Amino acid sequence: RPDASVGGAKSIIRHQLNGLSASWNSFENKERVLILTPIARFYEEYWNNLCNLNYPHELIEIGFILPRGREANQALLRIESAVKALQTGPKKNRFGKVTILRQDFESPFSQSEKDRHALSGQKERRAAMARARNSLFTTTIHPQISWVLWLDADIVETPATLIQDLAAHDKSIIVANCYQRYVEHGESKIRAYDFNSWQDSDTAAQMANEMGEDDVIFEGYAEMATYRTLMAYLYVPGNDVHEEVPLDGVGATALLVKADVHRDGAMFPPFPFYHLLESEGFTKMAKRLGYDAFGLPNYLVYHYNE
Amino acid sequence: RPDASVGGAKSIIRHQLNGLSASWNSFENKERVLILTPIARFYEEYWNNLCNLNYPHELIEIGFILPRGREANQALLRIESAVKALQTGPKKNRFGKVTILRQDFESPFSQSEKDRHALSGQKERRAAMARARNSLFTTTIHPQISWVLWLDADIVETPATLIQDLAAHDKSIIVANCYQRYVEHGESKIRAYDFNSWQDSDTAAQMANEMGEDDVIFEGYAEMATYRTLMAYLYVPGNDVHEEVPLDGVGATALLVKADVHRDGAMFPPFPFYHLLESEGFTKMAKRLGYDAFGLPNYLVYHYNE
Ligand SMILES: Nc1nc2c(ncn2[C@@H]2O[C@H](COP(=O)(O)OP(=O)(O)O)[C@@H](O)[C@H]2O)c(=O)[nH]1
Ligand SMILES: Nc1nc2c(ncn2[C@@H]2O[C@H](COP(=O)(O)OP(=O)(O)O)[C@@H](O)[C@H]2O)c(=O)[nH]1
Ligand SMILES: [Mn+2]
Ligand SMILES: [Mn+2]
Repeated sequence: RPDASVGGAKSIIRHQLNGLSASWNSFENKERVLILTPIARFYEEYWNNLCNLNYPHELIEIGFILPRGREANQALLRIESAVKALQTGPKKNRFGKVTILRQDFESPFSQSEKDRHALSGQKERRAAMARARNSLFTTTIHPQISWVLWLDADIVETPATLIQDLAAHDKSIIVANCYQRYVEHGESKIRAYDFNSWQDSDTAAQMANEMGEDDVIFEGYAEMATYRTLMAYLYVPGNDVHEEVPLDGVGATALLVKADVHRDGAMFPPFPFYHLLESEGFTKMAKRLGYDAFGLPNYLVYHYNE
Repeated sequence: RPDASVGGAKSIIRHQLNGLSASWNSFENKERVLILTPIARFYEEYWNNLCNLNYPHELIEIGFILPRGREANQALLRIESAVKALQTGPKKNRFGKVTILRQDFESPFSQSEKDRHALSGQKERRAAMARARNSLFTTTIHPQISWVLWLDADIVETPATLIQDLAAHDKSIIVANCYQRYVEHGESKIRAYDFNSWQDSDTAAQMANEMGEDDVIFEGYAEMATYRTLMAYLYVPGNDVHEEVPLDGVGATALLVKADVHRDGAMFPPFPFYHLLESEGFTKMAKRLGYDAFGLPNYLVYHYNE
């Protein structure tokens, strides 16, 4: 257990929630960042990228959550040994705290790219992801946390300044643009990967109106053309990486959220919420709570290529 | 800070969420209970009742959240001195941990009984309460917590076995019946106090259907007769205190919730959720997540009488 277990004056802990800032000046203010990663598979590249983030490591806490099952057991062993090596190595590399949680349910789907992305399974898959994310943040946010960085376990490349860069915008919710590297005819190229960051469209609004109460709109499926504006396609090579666009839905691959947004109750709905699930439903819920969401179309992070 | 702040092997914390039980056998299983109290005014009687709960104190953690403002400043001083006296007193009386949080906003309303209960202010008042409750549970639940007991600061009398009694039912959500003592013609009597625990009615369902998206149904107001079945009126003196009734809305005056329900994402909506706010909206959200709620009409707890 992290805490003194029985009584004594030390067990009285008093916090001013408003004494905490979450600001463009995160680095100088020594704001504490909680990095949260639901993880079904372990990639060395994710871990190396995480360790290379140059926000002061002692101000970073990390939370992992793994499903049950054979593949996740493998991932657990690899995380544990990586964490152990880091946390017993040079002091300046160590993170403030690492929490590893195990779900009480298995991932409802195979982790193959094809199975993960079949439309038929999205409702169950995204609902399971939402529950995992909710368990993760509700058990790891404590009063000292200013920011939560949602970082998927298959994000293998980001700028080392990811946290400072996103925090500099001082937004309640801000998301990077998630691309993927691939090779074509021996040439290295990039392509859009995450389609969950979007601006709403009249078509999608009308689809929602005509749907049954429990139906869900998923983005990025031809069978369900929404004509939403996808941030993935707003990237213009060479343009300002700090250009902001307002969003109505966000993906959680590399998403920075002020901890107060979650404290106010913004969670990842595992049930259809305005016909949206998980990170997209989270955006709608945060908006209902009075927050706005933004994306950085020219600020790229990269997803693993299976 | 409650946690070791920098690195080292001790900073790796591994938890099996499913290794935790929350069961009828809470006492023998040494299950950890988090008592959460939003508090605008301090009553000696609440504190004494809390200290008299005979669930092992070392398994109890407590979280308070106070609004800003002059009256709450008073309450804060009194809680702090009460907590300090207890936590430095005899070991067996001390609680495992006490966290005191301060909101970043003032209570939107005067704490007088009349102002608190005017229909006109309910939407704003219940929304503020919901945000306070969300901040409180999202910052205090940690992986070792099995149960959350929501206990209002003006609950001045409960059986000393409150936790065991409610936990014995092994329900995801279970609420006691909140009454109030008063004196009439020199005679001590009791009357129903909390009307937020109810079973839905066709009338209420129809009202909801005909309302605007952001309209809210509040219970216990003649201007808005819902014909719901109110648990407050199901109390039969002398009947079995362990009689259960299923509920569609619960009050949070004395409410026991398995921590997993909150971990899954069930929060107190500060925005209209199926035309419900706060603890009533929480019930609906928990149902959307697959949980059921129950009440004990003959198990009474008592609210302060102003
Ligand atoms: N805890 C947990 N993590 C999962 C589960 N399924 C996927 N993940 C992780 O959640 C993140 C997003 O899932 P992923 O399948 O990559 O989504 P995609 O990139 O949209 O295909 C990744 O970090 C996965 O490793 C699950 O059932 N439980
Ligand atoms: N943190 C916080 N607690 C509050 C606020 N307003 C009321 N409370 C507390 O919340 C609980 C329920 O509120 P109360 O006014 O008693 O509701 P009522 O019994 O329905 O009138 C009590 O414990 C109050 O002390 C607020 O703005 N912030
Ligand atoms: Mn992925
Ligand atoms: Mn009250």
